[in-house]
Amino acid sequence: MSLRIGEVEVEDTFAEAFPCWVARILITAESEKWLYAAAYSATGFATSLIMSPAEAGIERYVPPSETPDRRPGIIIQITHPKKEKLEEQLLRRIGQCVMTCPTTAVFNALESEETVDVGDKLRFFGDGFQEEGEVGDRFVWRIPVMEGEFLTEDVFGVVEGVAGGNFIIMGKTRSEALKAAEVAVEAMRAAAKVVPIFPGGICRSGSKVGSLKYEFLHASTNHLYCPTLRDKVPDSKVPPEVNAIYEVVFNGISVDEIKKATGAGIRAAAACPGVVKITAVNFEGKLGPYKIYLREALS
Amino acid sequence: MSLRIGEVEVEDTFAEAFPCWVARILITAESEKWLYAAAYSATGFATSLIMSPAEAGIERYVPPSETPDRRPGIIIQITHPKKEKLEEQLLRRIGQCVMTCPTTAVFNALESEETVDVGDKLRFFGDGFQEEGEVGDRFVWRIPVMEGEFLTEDVFGVVEGVAGGNFIIMGKTRSEALKAAEVAVEAMRAAAKVVPIFPGGICRSGSKVGSLKYEFLHASTNHLYCPTLRDKVPDSKVPPEVNAIYEVVFNGISVDEIKKATGAGIRAAAACPGVVKITAVNFEGKLGPYKIYLREALS
Amino acid sequence: MSLRIGEVEVEDTFAEAFPCWVARILITAESEKWLYAAAYSATGFATSLIMSPAEAGIERYVPPSETPDRRPGIIIQITHPKKEKLEEQLLRRIGQCVMTCPTTAVFNALESEETVDVGDKLRFFGDGFQEEGEVGDRFVWRIPVMEGEFLTEDVFGVVEGVAGGNFIIMGKTRSEALKAAEVAVEAMRAAAKVVPIFPGGICRSGSKVGSLKYEFLHASTNHLYCPTLRDKVPDSKVPPEVNAIYEVVFNGISVDEIKKATGAGIRAAAACPGVVKITAVNFEGKLGPYKIYLREALS
Amino acid sequence: MSLRIGEVEVEDTFAEAFPCWVARILITAESEKWLYAAAYSATGFATSLIMSPAEAGIERYVPPSETPDRRPGIIIQITHPKKEKLEEQLLRRIGQCVMTCPTTAVFNALESEETVDVGDKLRFFGDGFQEEGEVGDRFVWRIPVMEGEFLTEDVFGVVEGVAGGNFIIMGKTRSEALKAAEVAVEAMRAAAKVVPIFPGGICRSGSKVGSLKYEFLHASTNHLYCPTLRDKVPDSKVPPEVNAIYEVVFNGISVDEIKKATGAGIRAAAACPGVVKITAVNFEGKLGPYKIYLREALS
Repeated sequence: MSLRIGEVEVEDTFAEAFPCWVARILITAESEKWLYAAAYSATGFATSLIMSPAEAGIERYVPPSETPDRRPGIIIQITHPKKEKLEEQLLRRIGQCVMTCPTTAVFNALESEETVDVGDKLRFFGDGFQEEGEVGDRFVWRIPVMEGEFLTEDVFGVVEGVAGGNFIIMGKTRSEALKAAEVAVEAMRAAAKVVPIFPGGICRSGSKVGSLKYEFLHASTNHLYCPTLRDKVPDSKVPPEVNAIYEVVFNGISVDEIKKATGAGIRAAAACPGVVKITAVNFEGKLGPYKIYLREALS
Repeated sequence: MSLRIGEVEVEDTFAEAFPCWVARILITAESEKWLYAAAYSATGFATSLIMSPAEAGIERYVPPSETPDRRPGIIIQITHPKKEKLEEQLLRRIGQCVMTCPTTAVFNALESEETVDVGDKLRFFGDGFQEEGEVGDRFVWRIPVMEGEFLTEDVFGVVEGVAGGNFIIMGKTRSEALKAAEVAVEAMRAAAKVVPIFPGGICRSGSKVGSLKYEFLHASTNHLYCPTLRDKVPDSKVPPEVNAIYEVVFNGISVDEIKKATGAGIRAAAACPGVVKITAVNFEGKLGPYKIYLREALS
Repeated sequence: MSLRIGEVEVEDTFAEAFPCWVARILITAESEKWLYAAAYSATGFATSLIMSPAEAGIERYVPPSETPDRRPGIIIQITHPKKEKLEEQLLRRIGQCVMTCPTTAVFNALESEETVDVGDKLRFFGDGFQEEGEVGDRFVWRIPVMEGEFLTEDVFGVVEGVAGGNFIIMGKTRSEALKAAEVAVEAMRAAAKVVPIFPGGICRSGSKVGSLKYEFLHASTNHLYCPTLRDKVPDSKVPPEVNAIYEVVFNGISVDEIKKATGAGIRAAAACPGVVKITAVNFEGKLGPYKIYLREALS
Repeated sequence: MSLRIGEVEVEDTFAEAFPCWVARILITAESEKWLYAAAYSATGFATSLIMSPAEAGIERYVPPSETPDRRPGIIIQITHPKKEKLEEQLLRRIGQCVMTCPTTAVFNALESEETVDVGDKLRFFGDGFQEEGEVGDRFVWRIPVMEGEFLTEDVFGVVEGVAGGNFIIMGKTRSEALKAAEVAVEAMRAAAKVVPIFPGGICRSGSKVGSLKYEFLHASTNHLYCPTLRDKVPDSKVPPEVNAIYEVVFNGISVDEIKKATGAGIRAAAACPGVVKITAVNFEGKLGPYKIYLREALS
C-alpha cells in the first residue's frame, strides 16, 4: 500500500530508530571559515557507529544576534549509545577540534537535567592559569592559549535522543535522485533539530545487517536496493524506472524532531523532478524501539 | 641568534619531528561539493594523536586532467605511528566517510614498495557482488551500492614519513597573526606534499608535554607562549609587541617535503604585515629524531 | 479563492511575465574556484533591468562527464529585451569576466536558429594570432593569452524566452521565510532551465511600478507587502501572522520551464515550517503577455 | 637590471597607475552566504573600464566585533574616473545588488571630506514610508521592504585613489604560476586597503593598448607576454623556462596602499615554487601619473 505526493509513490512504512545519548553544542567564531573548520573537524569520522567512534553532524547556522557572544555560530550534535562514551567523545572532539581552532568558543545548546562535564575537564589544559568567567548568564572557563583565551561553557546538557531516522529516495537518474536528496536535507535542516550524519548529509551505500556470503561481516551492501543488481538478485526492490537510490539518515534530540524532519524532507524531495518512489529502512521492528511512520510524518 | 626576513625576526632554531607511517589517497567525485564532503569527513577528528585516533589533512586539489577517472580530485594524507593501525584507520575512514559519500571514488596516490590493503578489504562490503575493474592502468574493485557502484583501488602505498613539522608565527594583533598563518598555509600547500593537521591548518592552542600543576595530564597549554600570561610567568617567551601566536603543524611524506613546506610557509608569513617573529617548537632534540632547521629550510 | 498545500495557503493567482532574449552559456574551468569566480563576475550587476544593464543568473553546475572539454562546468543565462543589446552584453560580460579569468573556456548551451556572434568577435582580441580549433564537434577560437590560450565557441544560440517568473513566500518569522525561499531556489534549480536573478536567488525588496509620493520614480517599495507598514497602510496585503516576505524571481528559456520552476519551488517552500501563504506578483495582466497560473504550475 | 628574492628575478621597473575616484563600502548581513551574495553581485561586471561600467572588488571580511551593527561584514571598493559616474554606479549597484539582498545593511567605510549621496537617494525607494534612524553614531535611513527594513547610511566618503596597481608573475607551469598568484592575492589583502578587480583577483589575459592588426580595437592581447607566441614574435618577453603568466591588478584608496600591496604580494608570490620572474606593466610613463617602483615597494 502506498501514499502519494503528486506523481511520487511514498511507501506506507516506517523508519526504525534507536535511542542514543545526544549532546547539542554551539560553536561560535569570528568568521564562518573558522566555524566550519571547527565543525567539520569535530563532526568528522562520525558517520555510523558500525566503524566510527561516534555519530555527529551539523544542525544549523546561528546568526550573531542569537548567540551568547554575539558572533556567528553553528550548532552540532554528537551522539553515542552510552552516556560515558559520549562524554569522552565530547572531550576529545571539543578538545582536539575546537579548542585548537582559531577564534572559536563553545557553549551548551541543550537544556537538560542530565549533564556531562566538558569545560570542567578541558579547563585543566589551562594548567592552573585558567580563570572563571561569564558570557551573558553562562558560566564559562577562560583557558589561556597562544592566541589569547579559549572560552568553554562548564557543563553540557545531554538527553536520550534518537539515532537512525531515515528515508530513501529513488530516482530515474543519479543526478535527479541526488539533487532531490540535497533539497530534502536543506528542508530537514529548516524544519527540525536533527543532524544528517553522512558526508554532505546523504548516504549512497546503504547497508544490511550481516552478509549473505561472508560470515565475518557485521554489515554489507543492501543488495536489494542496488540498481546494478536488479536483474541479478531475485527479490530486488529497485523499481523498473529507477537507476539511483540515496538514503538520508539523521539523528535528533527527540522522536518529535525526527518526525518533523521526516515529513519536511520527504515533501521537499517529492517536489523535485525524476523522483519515483520514497520509502524508509526498517528491520521489521525487531531492532529499534522507535517506529517513525511516514504516513504520520506527512500528516 | 637570529635570521631576518625584512623586519621579521626568524629564530635560528629547529622544528623537532617524528617518524610516522603515511598513506596518500586521491578521492575523486563529480563536484567539489562531494569531494570536500568526503575529504572533511575522512580527515575529521584527526588533529593530534594526543586524543585523536589518527592524524590527517587535506594536501591539495587535483584538476580533472590529472586524475585517473578525469574527475576533480583531492589528495589527503592519513598518518599513524604504527603501520597496522594506519591500515585500520584507512579502512574505517575510507569505508565510513568516502564509500558512503555520493559520487566518490578512491585511488592510491603514493608509489611505495610498502603497501596496505584497502580496496582488497572494503570489497567484502559488496557481499560477493563486487567485480574487478580497471581505471586507466589501475586495478580497482567495483562495489555495488544504492547509487550505482563505488570504485576503489586495491592496494595503497605507505611510507615512513614525518609528523610534527611546524613553525610559530608571532604577531602584533590577532587578525594580523592569523592572516599571516593563513597565507603561510596556502604557500605551503603550493610548495610541498604536506598536510596541515589542525582545523583550517592552524593551531591556536599549542601545548607542552605534561603539566606544571596536574600530574594526570599528558599535555597542557604552552604557558610560555600565552600572551595573556606574559606578565604572570617569569620566563615568558612572548615578545613585548606580540599579542597573538599561531602554530602551523604539518605532516608529510619525507623530511625533504617538510623542509620545503617550512621554507615556503615562513617566507609567505613574513610577507604579511604585523608579523614580529617566527620560530619553531622543539624539545631540545630529546624526543624526535628529525631536526628541521629553519636556517636550512630558508636557504 | 485559494489552493492549499498542507497548512499553507497558495493564492489562486498568476505571475505575470515578459518576453526577453536569452543566451545560455556554459563556462568550464579547472576547478570550481575559477568557475564560480567567472560566473559571479559575468552575472553580477544584473538583477533587474530597472537599473542594471542586463539580467543574468547561474542555472546549474555541470559535471565534467557532461561538458565538451571534460572539465567542471556552470551554465549561466543572460537576458535582455533587445537582441542587439544582448549580443553587446554577452561580448562585454564574456570578454571582461570570463576571458580574463584563469583556466576558463566558454561554450554555447542553447540550440537555436537565432544566434549572436560572440567568439567570432572576441577572437579579434587575439590580434591576428588567434587560430581556429575544435573541441569535440564544436568550432572554437583559440585566442593566445598570457596563461596560454582562451577557447570560446564561435556562435551562440539565443531564443525569445521569459523574464519575470516569480512567486512570493510569506512566513511567520524572517528566518523561516528566508529558509523556505532558499529551499525553493534549490528545488527550482533541480527542476528547470531557469535562473534566479537576485543575489543568492532571492529578493527582499519587491517593488511596485511608480510611486505614491515621488513622481520622478519608476519603481518604489511594494508598500502593501511590507510587514512593518501593515498597520500604517489601509489595504496592506500582509496577513496577521506574517512578519517577513521574500520574492523569488527567475528568467528562463521558455514558458514551460518557468512553469516547472514555479511548481517545484512552491512545493518545496511549502514543505518548510513557518510558511503561511504563497502567492505571485502580477499587474492584473496589463503589462506582460505571459500569465503563469500557480494552479496550473502545481497540477 | 634586476632585484632578486631567493631564486626569483624581480625586474627593476615600475607599475604605471592612474587616479580614480574610490568609494569604500561596508556591507553587513546575518551570515556570510548573504554577505558574499551581495558583494559578488555589487562588484560583478566590474573588471576593467575598457568594457565594464565601473571597476570594483572585495577588500576584506570584517568580523562582527568591528562593524556598527555587530554583524559579519565585507568591505568592497567601487571606482570610476569621474565622481558623478561613481555616484551613479553606487546608486545602481547598492540599489540593485545590496538593497535587494536578504538581511544586508550598508555603511560608509571611508572618512573623507568629499562625499556622494547614496542613502539620501536610495531612501526615496521607501516611497515616503522611510524613517531616519541611528546605528551607533551613524545616521541611517530605514527603508521598509518586504523582509522588514533595509538600513543604509546617508552619505558616503569618496577619495581620489589609484587604479591600475599591478604586478606580473611568470611561472614554469600554469599550476605553479596560478598558485603563486593566489597566494599573492591573499597576502595583498592582508597587507593593504586595495581590491583586486579581476575574477578571483587574477587576470590571465593581459592586454596592450590598441592592436597590431585591427584598427578598430582599443585593446588586444599582450602578445609579447603570451607563452604560445614566444617563437612566433621576434621580441617576446617570455623567458625560456616560463609557460604561464598571470597579472594581479588592483585599485586602492592611495598610492601608499598600492605600494604596500605590491610589496606584500610580490614577496608572497616569490615564496612559492616554480616562480621564475616577477615584473610589472607600464607604458613607459606616458599614460599614468603614478609610478609604483617594485624596488621601493620591496624596501
